[in-house]
Amino acid sequence: MLGHLYEDEICSAARALELVGERWSLLILRNAMFAGMTRFTEFQRSLGIAPNVLAKRLAAFVDAGLLELREDGDYALTDKGLDLKPAIIALTEWGDRWARDEMGRPVVYRHLECDGEVSLAMTCADCGEPVSSAHVTAEVAPWVTERKYGTIGA
Amino acid sequence: MLGHLYEDEICSAARALELVGERWSLLILRNAMFAGMTRFTEFQRSLGIAPNVLAKRLAAFVDAGLLELREDGDYALTDKGLDLKPAIIALTEWGDRWARDEMGRPVVYRHLECDGEVSLAMTCADCGEPVSSAHVTAEVAPWVTERKYGTIGA
Repeated sequence: MLGHLYEDEICSAARALELVGERWSLLILRNAMFAGMTRFTEFQRSLGIAPNVLAKRLAAFVDAGLLELREDGDYALTDKGLDLKPAIIALTEWGDRWARDEMGRPVVYRHLECDGEVSLAMTCADCGEPVSSAHVTAEVAPWVTERKYGTIGA
Repeated sequence: MLGHLYEDEICSAARALELVGERWSLLILRNAMFAGMTRFTEFQRSLGIAPNVLAKRLAAFVDAGLLELREDGDYALTDKGLDLKPAIIALTEWGDRWARDEMGRPVVYRHLECDGEVSLAMTCADCGEPVSSAHVTAEVAPWVTERKYGTIGA
């Protein structure tokens, strides 16, 4: 487990990366999410990953509640694991834009109901407009600064 | 450089992870994107990361065109680097939902123009509906299967 890798970080992205930021982690979850894989041997063959590394990753995912190990040996995604789809899609879209294969996009995400193409967008809850990367800022909560540096002047 | 870490993968998410999937990578970029950091020492102090690891990461980012090393020693985000914001936000939103600090969300993303809260959503280009994780599938392009396994029967 890597629960304390980014111990000093008070950041939800860091919390996420402690669980899924190791080599192969997100690709294992991708295969569970989008290729329907559930078996150790399926992950192992499809990724060509060392069995000891795969075993470690899968155990960590079960520990973290991203996968559930069933009695028949299947690894099943939990809601917590499934909810990482937007993160995978965000990385895919970035790769499509900046490191695209000469043949085009390897994967298109589709809506189960109507087969339409699914994409991610940042939108503003106030003005309702789509927001581009250059126009997003991060507001850090006051308690974060306080916990990190203490109350100045106290 | 880790350009060939996931060599057998024909996948844009894998391409992205080859560039930003190492320990500390996305947190360094997060600090460049959202905390406006540009100096080696700023990254080093804020993250408490070993200088040799930081130097390696920054050099790889420059190599990959995510950061630009200016003459004054500043590391400036390129458009390619900046465009990783949605990936960071996706991980943050997941961490907010599944590993939230007892105090609440450490960071809220805001729209530069109107200060409204920014969030990510998956939407379908055909029906226009918001799409939940359970309702997204991945369609693999035929050329991917062909390149990986050859043409069956050919």
